[in-house]
Amino acid sequence: MGSGIIPYMSALPHVVILGGGFGGLFAARALKRAPVRVTLLDRHNYHLFQPLLYQVATAALSPGDVASPIRWVLRRQRNVKVLLADVHRIDAAGKRVVLNAAATGDAEEALSYDYLIVATGAAHAYFGHAEWAARAPGLKTLDDALEMRRQVLLAFEAAERETDEARRRRLLTFVLVGAGPTGVELAGALIEIARQSLRQDFRSIKPESARILLLEGGPHVLGAFPQALRDKARAALERLGVEVRTNAVVTVVDADGVKVGDERIAAQTVLWAAGVAASPVVTSLGVPLDRAGRVLSEPTLAVPGYPDVYVVGDVCALQQDGRWLPGVAQVAMQGGAHVARNITRAIRREPPTPFRYRDYGNMAVIGRAAAVVDLGRIQIAGFLAWLMWVFLHVFWLIGFRNRVAVMSEWAWSYFTMQRRIRLITGERLWPKAG
Amino acid sequence: MGSGIIPYMSALPHVVILGGGFGGLFAARALKRAPVRVTLLDRHNYHLFQPLLYQVATAALSPGDVASPIRWVLRRQRNVKVLLADVHRIDAAGKRVVLNAAATGDAEEALSYDYLIVATGAAHAYFGHAEWAARAPGLKTLDDALEMRRQVLLAFEAAERETDEARRRRLLTFVLVGAGPTGVELAGALIEIARQSLRQDFRSIKPESARILLLEGGPHVLGAFPQALRDKARAALERLGVEVRTNAVVTVVDADGVKVGDERIAAQTVLWAAGVAASPVVTSLGVPLDRAGRVLSEPTLAVPGYPDVYVVGDVCALQQDGRWLPGVAQVAMQGGAHVARNITRAIRREPPTPFRYRDYGNMAVIGRAAAVVDLGRIQIAGFLAWLMWVFLHVFWLIGFRNRVAVMSEWAWSYFTMQRRIRLITGERLWPKAG
Repeated sequence: MGSGIIPYMSALPHVVILGGGFGGLFAARALKRAPVRVTLLDRHNYHLFQPLLYQVATAALSPGDVASPIRWVLRRQRNVKVLLADVHRIDAAGKRVVLNAAATGDAEEALSYDYLIVATGAAHAYFGHAEWAARAPGLKTLDDALEMRRQVLLAFEAAERETDEARRRRLLTFVLVGAGPTGVELAGALIEIARQSLRQDFRSIKPESARILLLEGGPHVLGAFPQALRDKARAALERLGVEVRTNAVVTVVDADGVKVGDERIAAQTVLWAAGVAASPVVTSLGVPLDRAGRVLSEPTLAVPGYPDVYVVGDVCALQQDGRWLPGVAQVAMQGGAHVARNITRAIRREPPTPFRYRDYGNMAVIGRAAAVVDLGRIQIAGFLAWLMWVFLHVFWLIGFRNRVAVMSEWAWSYFTMQRRIRLITGERLWPKAG
Repeated sequence: MGSGIIPYMSALPHVVILGGGFGGLFAARALKRAPVRVTLLDRHNYHLFQPLLYQVATAALSPGDVASPIRWVLRRQRNVKVLLADVHRIDAAGKRVVLNAAATGDAEEALSYDYLIVATGAAHAYFGHAEWAARAPGLKTLDDALEMRRQVLLAFEAAERETDEARRRRLLTFVLVGAGPTGVELAGALIEIARQSLRQDFRSIKPESARILLLEGGPHVLGAFPQALRDKARAALERLGVEVRTNAVVTVVDADGVKVGDERIAAQTVLWAAGVAASPVVTSLGVPLDRAGRVLSEPTLAVPGYPDVYVVGDVCALQQDGRWLPGVAQVAMQGGAHVARNITRAIRREPPTPFRYRDYGNMAVIGRAAAVVDLGRIQIAGFLAWLMWVFLHVFWLIGFRNRVAVMSEWAWSYFTMQRRIRLITGERLWPKAG
């Protein structure tokens, strides 16, 4: 690829958006009628509906059910150009973004902007133990989900071949670290796989004898929810057969499993649902960050000192009414739309307005027919909450086609308790030795 | 894993089946009521419906639509045990199969058999140029198909970023080597992607300007079909916009593209649909093989010198009425069922019978609404042939659930001309430099 700026409708102000997640996509859409040209960059070619990613990791949905090509989602919005690109750094003083060269190219490539929206999201954080990453995959991208799926399915396959009882127990022990929504949802899905989906498939092992442990370092399951819902979630998980341990700080993750305090838990499969940190590209802005690597933004979502640069979603740290905004899809969506409005105002030479997050509620699903829903004053648990979860998630899914596909997959799995997408793909045949 | 034999219903004769493709699966099913215990081994956990694999490679279907877990397919057949395992060699004198150790294990593991069915299929063959494999992926496994999909989609993405015109042309040139059914089906799908599916998605390139070249070393497209259908297939491909070249022997595949005789064709993407060779595990039998590495079997499908070992499908070379049996799904299915009958006869101390392949016909699809069908005396081309292709393929698909999923995907893509599963997954972001 040649060096230099890609020429493109050069008369209008150029808005560059980094990231095609909820924040970036909602910003791009909100700029539809604005007098700007937009370039949206992402490292992946797809927008991911992250709230359903755990269903790919647990073999209930296909990658195509929870992801759509970003350029397909935005195909009719003619003022947006989408580029598959990996951002090397932000040069805020020079008002440009420097890209990692494509392997086909020969020179550094940069993109100048008039306004920049940084919506690059978060990655897993291992509390200073980067070496745990290889052993305990997290759940952020499609490749992460496929890796989790492979590890879980391979553990059952290896157990079927294993004749030594202790080794077999270790292969059939699954440890989940972190009891936020992702950990709770994974635990509920794993116990269903073990107790229902695989029931008839094996001859030497009983999949229903698998142990699913949910370890939480803090005092509560679903700590962000009100106490009554925390208790109900924990009780529901335990009823399903999940071993829940709170105040259980994982101190070691190694080839043999994990250590909680002094206790060893031998487990082939360790899945990470604990910490996240902001995408490291924001460090190149050179502004103060919080402990999770997020930019301490202005109330307008602008970056201090760079009024033309905005941060949205998981890369942004902002307080509202004395509480930090949570790292959820709604904050990113509303933030993206707000930033688009502030850019439109700036073009009209109007001052930016502060961001005000409107909390519509919080939900998490537990197993195959229960959920907890917190709408502030109203709190719901059980089957009704689960129905609300189903309809809201399908409603949110981007693209009509995916909605139909997901609903039919769900209807089928709900009644058959099967999980259709139990495919082991990828290079490595067997999990690491232990 | 411990060493030694896995104990399992040890009173009955033990039939070991290597491979869960059409041959192995049909053999296992045909042994349902036989007084045997069956162990089926495969390197993958899924049975693959290979006739539709090109649709995964071209983003129309999900992996889960064309593959089902083998143990799920056989879950109700209680005399079958399925093991995910990689066969190291066959020890025919010792009547056992030696497995590659699972990474969790510590010792060599072997499985004794009374009867062995080898149905390990074929892999790509690069005519003595093993180094072409990394550059020109073939289409045999789900991972192959996902790799093809990634390379095709990445080429369009890289072209959108490219500013140099010659490089952009090279990125938008796709070479298919081999004009058998797979090559023809891939060519038809690729031209549809370029001309229809991606039409609105790009801003800097015109996807419909992509060149699709179908190179065939022999004199004909679809050489296994009658002349009238070959001509119709070629004409249909050319009408769609595919550049078809016959007697075009590829002599070089390298980073820049391919060479046909002395002519250079610069292409980022080269896909292999030319040669296959039998899976190399049959070499450990120590019996004569043909040029493609297949066992020259007895008419009963037994291996010469080893009456308890049978070969089925692509690892078997057998003549019928003076012609070699073709490497198609029907031969493997019928062969698998026949071998099961011969084993049942052997247990009753009856002599084995010779295999007689019944040819129900041959078909290949060309683009989105045409096909050629050869039923011997009756030959059909065009839309009617395509309808026959659709219904036969859905009818063959193993598992009710997949049929519904595939039909609904097809109906949707047929009317919208979209391809939903346009996801780039896997580690490498960019294709190799050229």
